[in-house]
Amino acid sequence: METKDTEVTKRLAEWVAGADRDAVPQSARQAGVKTLLNWMGCAVGGSQHEAVEIALRALGPFMGPREATLLGRGERVDPLSAALLNGLSSHVHDFDDTHLKTIIHPAGPVASAILSLAEHIPVTGAAFLHALILGVEVECRIGNAVYPSHYDVGWHITGTTGVFGAAAAAGRLLGLTTERMCWALGTAGTQASGLREMFGSMCKGFHVGRAAQNGLSAALLAAEGFTSSERAIEAPRGFANVLATERNYSEIDQGLGEHYEIELNTYKPFPCGIVIHPAIDGCLQLRGEHRFRAEEVAAVELRVHPLVLELTGKRDPSTGLEGKFSIYHAAAVALARGQAGMEAFSDGAVKDSAVVALRRRVTATADGSLGEDQAHISIRLEGKGKVELFIEHAIGSLERPMSDEAMEAKVHDLAGPVLGKDGVDAMIRTCRRVEELPAASELARSASG
Amino acid sequence: METKDTEVTKRLAEWVAGADRDAVPQSARQAGVKTLLNWMGCAVGGSQHEAVEIALRALGPFMGPREATLLGRGERVDPLSAALLNGLSSHVHDFDDTHLKTIIHPAGPVASAILSLAEHIPVTGAAFLHALILGVEVECRIGNAVYPSHYDVGWHITGTTGVFGAAAAAGRLLGLTTERMCWALGTAGTQASGLREMFGSMCKGFHVGRAAQNGLSAALLAAEGFTSSERAIEAPRGFANVLATERNYSEIDQGLGEHYEIELNTYKPFPCGIVIHPAIDGCLQLRGEHRFRAEEVAAVELRVHPLVLELTGKRDPSTGLEGKFSIYHAAAVALARGQAGMEAFSDGAVKDSAVVALRRRVTATADGSLGEDQAHISIRLEGKGKVELFIEHAIGSLERPMSDEAMEAKVHDLAGPVLGKDGVDAMIRTCRRVEELPAASELARSASG
Repeated sequence: METKDTEVTKRLAEWVAGADRDAVPQSARQAGVKTLLNWMGCAVGGSQHEAVEIALRALGPFMGPREATLLGRGERVDPLSAALLNGLSSHVHDFDDTHLKTIIHPAGPVASAILSLAEHIPVTGAAFLHALILGVEVECRIGNAVYPSHYDVGWHITGTTGVFGAAAAAGRLLGLTTERMCWALGTAGTQASGLREMFGSMCKGFHVGRAAQNGLSAALLAAEGFTSSERAIEAPRGFANVLATERNYSEIDQGLGEHYEIELNTYKPFPCGIVIHPAIDGCLQLRGEHRFRAEEVAAVELRVHPLVLELTGKRDPSTGLEGKFSIYHAAAVALARGQAGMEAFSDGAVKDSAVVALRRRVTATADGSLGEDQAHISIRLEGKGKVELFIEHAIGSLERPMSDEAMEAKVHDLAGPVLGKDGVDAMIRTCRRVEELPAASELARSASG
Repeated sequence: METKDTEVTKRLAEWVAGADRDAVPQSARQAGVKTLLNWMGCAVGGSQHEAVEIALRALGPFMGPREATLLGRGERVDPLSAALLNGLSSHVHDFDDTHLKTIIHPAGPVASAILSLAEHIPVTGAAFLHALILGVEVECRIGNAVYPSHYDVGWHITGTTGVFGAAAAAGRLLGLTTERMCWALGTAGTQASGLREMFGSMCKGFHVGRAAQNGLSAALLAAEGFTSSERAIEAPRGFANVLATERNYSEIDQGLGEHYEIELNTYKPFPCGIVIHPAIDGCLQLRGEHRFRAEEVAAVELRVHPLVLELTGKRDPSTGLEGKFSIYHAAAVALARGQAGMEAFSDGAVKDSAVVALRRRVTATADGSLGEDQAHISIRLEGKGKVELFIEHAIGSLERPMSDEAMEAKVHDLAGPVLGKDGVDAMIRTCRRVEELPAASELARSASG
């Protein structure tokens, strides 16, 4: 169903520019805090990644005043550059949040843009959280309007919709009028980019950083009067027509403020493709319950959604990165070690002889009757018979969200090696009281390393 | 005809990385100098435009070391920011060069990127001119491969292909290997953007500047080892498949080095939509020959290609910008003033009562039998009967290129108000001896204002 001849860009701009902070329900604000905490953990956790090092080396000589924090690093750079690098580092491990309806990773573009901005102009913690919620709303609503055709064409939807979200959130903090918010969305939308062909290269995380940086600059330009079309989304040669083959504009402007997309955001418990999560979840649960050792496992039989083998069917991974695309490694490491965090997808874990041996005893079968967040795990134990488990909804799904404790453990796993245990605890405390912070820049300071 | 399963990105990268400068024929080098001179005139001429002022005000606080020149301005900024702003200013008047086969404006993205780079690393004038020729080649060949479907879909082709050209030219000057040149093209291509919906707003020129800046940063990133797909153009989810509905890969890699697209570049004699040029040309010629005054013109009848009325059919423009989209104003001002330079498309000229009066006596009829660079002009003079002229090829077309003198007059018209007559003469002399310059940065200094 298409709604034609609408002015959705303007209506969206008007809503973002004028939305009442007090009208945001507690549930959405709680989701905002979760999104923020998860994002900060990911950004700190990715901050030492080679892609970040290279980008800083390559672009550092061109950066401006050292106002803004690179999360997890000592360096300070100008806010536009910080938006780029924090966005990049928050996505390099593919461990950030997921809006399951669209596969958008919402936090990266939006949070990276506004945290940098909050080190340039005064922003209270409450205004920051509200802008984050609004930016995610804009990004995910535009995503809802063009998904799946937009993604199917070949666009990395986090980059293409993220730039709108970053512009909206930054524009809100800059106090843009409706007209200028339209220009911010337009100048953002005409920069929408990011090809799925880049998956597997450093450009994937770069898309997120560039969306943050370009969205922030779109808002800054609009604030000074830089003009764009005011129908960037819906015009015949606008975003939704040029970058998608089908679109539903009512997803953009219907029920604004009545529900919040951020409440549909999810958080990965494991740093690998989300389609493997049900199998990992099942393996960890069975090991926890039956307390067997790796060498007791005679055979592992997995039944999984067909997409699992298509996306993560690598039989013999040789690096940590390849391990993320191997259902065999994921199941084996979970069973052998009883955990599937960052270390489980390191080069060392993939080469660990105990894990390799167990991996060879794992088989996986596609089963079209299973949902994407389901899996059936059957393990034959030497001399003890079979243990089995059906995962109806994987941990991390909307139906079975991570607990606060599990989220904090994840953040420690990611950020601990950079900030140390006490540092991570302090960062978590700062995130949790974001709405009370007189200055949102405290968030950045708590994670500067 | 599609050439499938090719590796055109790699072949193009290999050619750019290894191309022999001495193999470039004199004709291509001469075209390169013309392209350079025209671009510098445009960049200086646009340097005081409101869009440039706003962008500098909005983004200036984030800019880095003051190594690079903003053409026509006193300020110096970091090279990535200079690439953005020089690209923007060179296109704000829509007076830059045109590769007629694709409607790409080739110089803006490429020259803006490498002139800034030449203020960061040592680059000889000869290496600079060669890189410009190579960058334009890459940009126009990719354009040839996807035109017209890519443009028809709604993409501003100067932005989308320009980013590749900028990356290629900058990558060449950075001495990238073939592998890293592939990454530069990939990191460029995944940023390809710019919607035609933005035409008429400040974003149009912004596309050119961003293409320059993003292409330059793609090359800088690749130089340090930032990876991308190595099949950015031809992969199923690469540029040519995602951003166009038809493509011909042979345009990209056939006959590399055998001919040069820069020899097909053209230069506008008048600062308005190219489709109006035949009519202006005819009006100026008739006035020059018959020496009548505006008030003697009883009626002007134009027969023009149908596209002219579609794109520039504005009957009553009220600003200089609108005047550029009015065949009626263009003909009237050419007849009234005997010139159609920058001043002819100012607010003042559009409101000039003599011009307005004459404009109301201009009629235009679409004639499908005419070519895009043709027009028939018939003028009825009070008491003197009719004078008529058929323009077979407008001045500025490939068949009737501007003379060197006309080009220099254009550059003076553009840059004179900024640099003064002597300053423009010095800039022209520097451009003309680009191949002898020990440092290409002299070009920037000659135009710094």
